[in-house]
Amino acid sequence: MTLVIALDGMGGDAAPRIVIEGAGMALREQPDLRFLMFGDRERIDPLLAVDATLAGRVELVHTPDFVASDAKPSQAVRQGRNTSMRLAVDAVKSGAAAAAISAGNTGALMGMATLVLRTLPGIDRPAIAATLPTRKKPVIVLDLGANVVCTDDNLLQFGVMGEVFSRVVLGVAKPRVALLNIGTEELKGDDVVRQAAARLKDASLHIDFIGFIEGHDVTDGVADVVVTDGFTGNVALKIAEGTAGMFTAAMRETFSDGWRAKLGYLVSRPALRKLRDRFDPRRYNGAMFLGLNGVVVKSHGGTDAIGFANAVRVAADLVRRRTNERIIEEMAELAARRPQAPARAAS
Amino acid sequence: MTLVIALDGMGGDAAPRIVIEGAGMALREQPDLRFLMFGDRERIDPLLAVDATLAGRVELVHTPDFVASDAKPSQAVRQGRNTSMRLAVDAVKSGAAAAAISAGNTGALMGMATLVLRTLPGIDRPAIAATLPTRKKPVIVLDLGANVVCTDDNLLQFGVMGEVFSRVVLGVAKPRVALLNIGTEELKGDDVVRQAAARLKDASLHIDFIGFIEGHDVTDGVADVVVTDGFTGNVALKIAEGTAGMFTAAMRETFSDGWRAKLGYLVSRPALRKLRDRFDPRRYNGAMFLGLNGVVVKSHGGTDAIGFANAVRVAADLVRRRTNERIIEEMAELAARRPQAPARAAS
Repeated sequence: MTLVIALDGMGGDAAPRIVIEGAGMALREQPDLRFLMFGDRERIDPLLAVDATLAGRVELVHTPDFVASDAKPSQAVRQGRNTSMRLAVDAVKSGAAAAAISAGNTGALMGMATLVLRTLPGIDRPAIAATLPTRKKPVIVLDLGANVVCTDDNLLQFGVMGEVFSRVVLGVAKPRVALLNIGTEELKGDDVVRQAAARLKDASLHIDFIGFIEGHDVTDGVADVVVTDGFTGNVALKIAEGTAGMFTAAMRETFSDGWRAKLGYLVSRPALRKLRDRFDPRRYNGAMFLGLNGVVVKSHGGTDAIGFANAVRVAADLVRRRTNERIIEEMAELAARRPQAPARAAS
Repeated sequence: MTLVIALDGMGGDAAPRIVIEGAGMALREQPDLRFLMFGDRERIDPLLAVDATLAGRVELVHTPDFVASDAKPSQAVRQGRNTSMRLAVDAVKSGAAAAAISAGNTGALMGMATLVLRTLPGIDRPAIAATLPTRKKPVIVLDLGANVVCTDDNLLQFGVMGEVFSRVVLGVAKPRVALLNIGTEELKGDDVVRQAAARLKDASLHIDFIGFIEGHDVTDGVADVVVTDGFTGNVALKIAEGTAGMFTAAMRETFSDGWRAKLGYLVSRPALRKLRDRFDPRRYNGAMFLGLNGVVVKSHGGTDAIGFANAVRVAADLVRRRTNERIIEEMAELAARRPQAPARAAS
C-alpha cells in the first residue's frame, strides 16, 4: 500500500541533505513510500538529481520559507504559515500525506501540530514519546517535554497511548506500564503521581500497570512503557544521552591511550562495533507526537541520513499499525467504563 | 587534629562487615580519625579483633536495635530512639562526634537527622547532595530526593550550599552554579525554576550563576554545581547510574563474546582498568545531607568497604573544611543584603 509522507525539507542542522539522503534510504527499504517534500527547490533539486529512484517518488513543493532552529515557538506558530514545517503538517490535515516528519525546531513543530491537527478524542494534551535502549527490549518513554506540568488525567492518557504503541507497533503482547517516581512504595512522590497511579490501577482496561519504578529501573528494562511528566522525562532522557555520550568518549580515549590499548582495540574491533551499533542513538531517532489527529514525528536536528531514515520508519510504522485508531478505541472504552466520563469531571 | 566520627554499625546490606572494613581503610589514610560505633557487640567484636589498629581507635557502644532497610521512615523516626542509626545522629547533636555516617534506610536517616539536628540558620530544608563524574571535573548535584516539591527559596538555598561545598571542599575557585531545566532559554520550565533563576541571579553574592542547563550539560561538565528539586534530581541520578550500569554490563558481554574479543580484552586490560576506575561508583559514594546543624553522610546500602571508606572521607572533608560554618556565613550575608530577610517573606 502506497504511503505518502510529508517532509520538512528545511529542518535540521544538515538539511536538506540529510532529509533527502534519509528518505532515499527509507525508500530502498520500503519501496511503497512516496514523499511530499516542502523546501527550497534550488537547494533540493541538485540533491534529488543524484538519486533517480527517489526523485521519481518525491513531489517537491517549492517552499523557500522555513522555521529557524532557534526561533521562538509561539512566534513561529503565529507567523510561519508558509514555512516548510507548517506546510508539511498541513498536508497531514488535508489528507495529502499520512504523516509529517521534521528535524527542525521541536517547540514550533509541537505548536503547529497541535494547532492544526488538534488532539484525539479523549486526549487533553499530546505527548512526546520515544523508544530508548535498555538492558533488555527497548522501552517507550513519554512525555519527553511537551508538558512541563501534568495532571493525573494527562498521565493516565499517556499511559493508555504508550500501552497501545508498545502493543501495536513494538509487538509486546502485554506491555508492563509503569510510572516514574523516586521510590517504589505507594507513598512516594507528589500528589499527581500518586493520583495517576490510582487511576492507572483503577482503569485496568488492558493495562498491566506495575506501579512506580525508579530511574535505574528504566534502563534495567523493568517496564515496557514508562509514563512521566514532560519536565522529568526531558531531564531523564537528556541525562541518559549525556551519560552514554560520556562513556562513548571515554572508551575512545581509552583505546587511543598507548600502543597496547590501540592493539587491543584492533583485536576486539568486531565485538566493539556490535556494542556501538546496539546503543547507536540513530537507531532510536524519531520522537513521536502521540495524541494528535495525525502522525507527526520529530527527528533529532543533529542526526544524519541513517538517523533520518529511522524517523521515516517510525512514522510509517505508526500509520501502518493504525496506532491513532487504536488509541481512539481505548479512550472510548475507558470513557464508557466510567459513567462520569470524561474522567476529569472528578477533579 | 583528632576527628571523631559516629558510625551506624548496623546500616547497609553487608553491615557490620563493610562498616568496619571501610573504617579501617579510612583510618590507614587518615590516622587522626577515631570512631564512635553503635551496633551489636556480638557481631562487631569478632570483626574488630582482626584489625588491632582500628580496634584501638574505636569506641563501641553496644546497640542491638537497628532500623530495617525497608522500615517506613516516619515509623522508624518515632519508634527508633534506641537504634544504632539514631544514636549515631544523637552523638553529633551532643558533640560526642563531629559527623555521623550510615549506610541504612535513607528516609529514616534524613528524618532522624532533621528532627535531632534541625536546619542551619537561614536554611528551610536540608538537601541530599552528591558528587558525580562528568567529562571534566566532578559536579555536585542537589537535591537528590529529600524534597519532592521545592520552592524558589529552597532552590536558592541549595544553590548557596552547593556553591560553598564546591569552593571549600572541592577547591573550585569560582564554581559555576546552574539550574537544571528542559531548555536553556529564560522562558523554559515551570514558575518555580524561573523564579529561582531570578533569585540566584539577583542574589549574586559570590555566586557565578550561569542560568539553566539541560540534562546532557550535567555530564558534559558545563557547571560545577547543579541545583534541582528532589524529584527531578533523584530520577536524574538513578537514570544516569542505570545508563552507566547498562554500559558496563554491555562492555562485559562484549569482551566475552568469542576468543577474539577475549584476547582484545587481555591486551587492552590496563587501559580498560583505568576506564573502570574513573567511573567506579564507589569513588562517588557518600551522599551529604547539607543544611543541617551537623554533618551526616549517607553511604549507599549496597556498597563495599572501599565505598564506605569514601563516605568516611566525605564526612571528614565536610568537617575539616568547616563547610557548615561557611554556609551560615553565606546565608547571613544573603539575609543582610536583602532588607526584608529572610527572603521567603515575599511569597
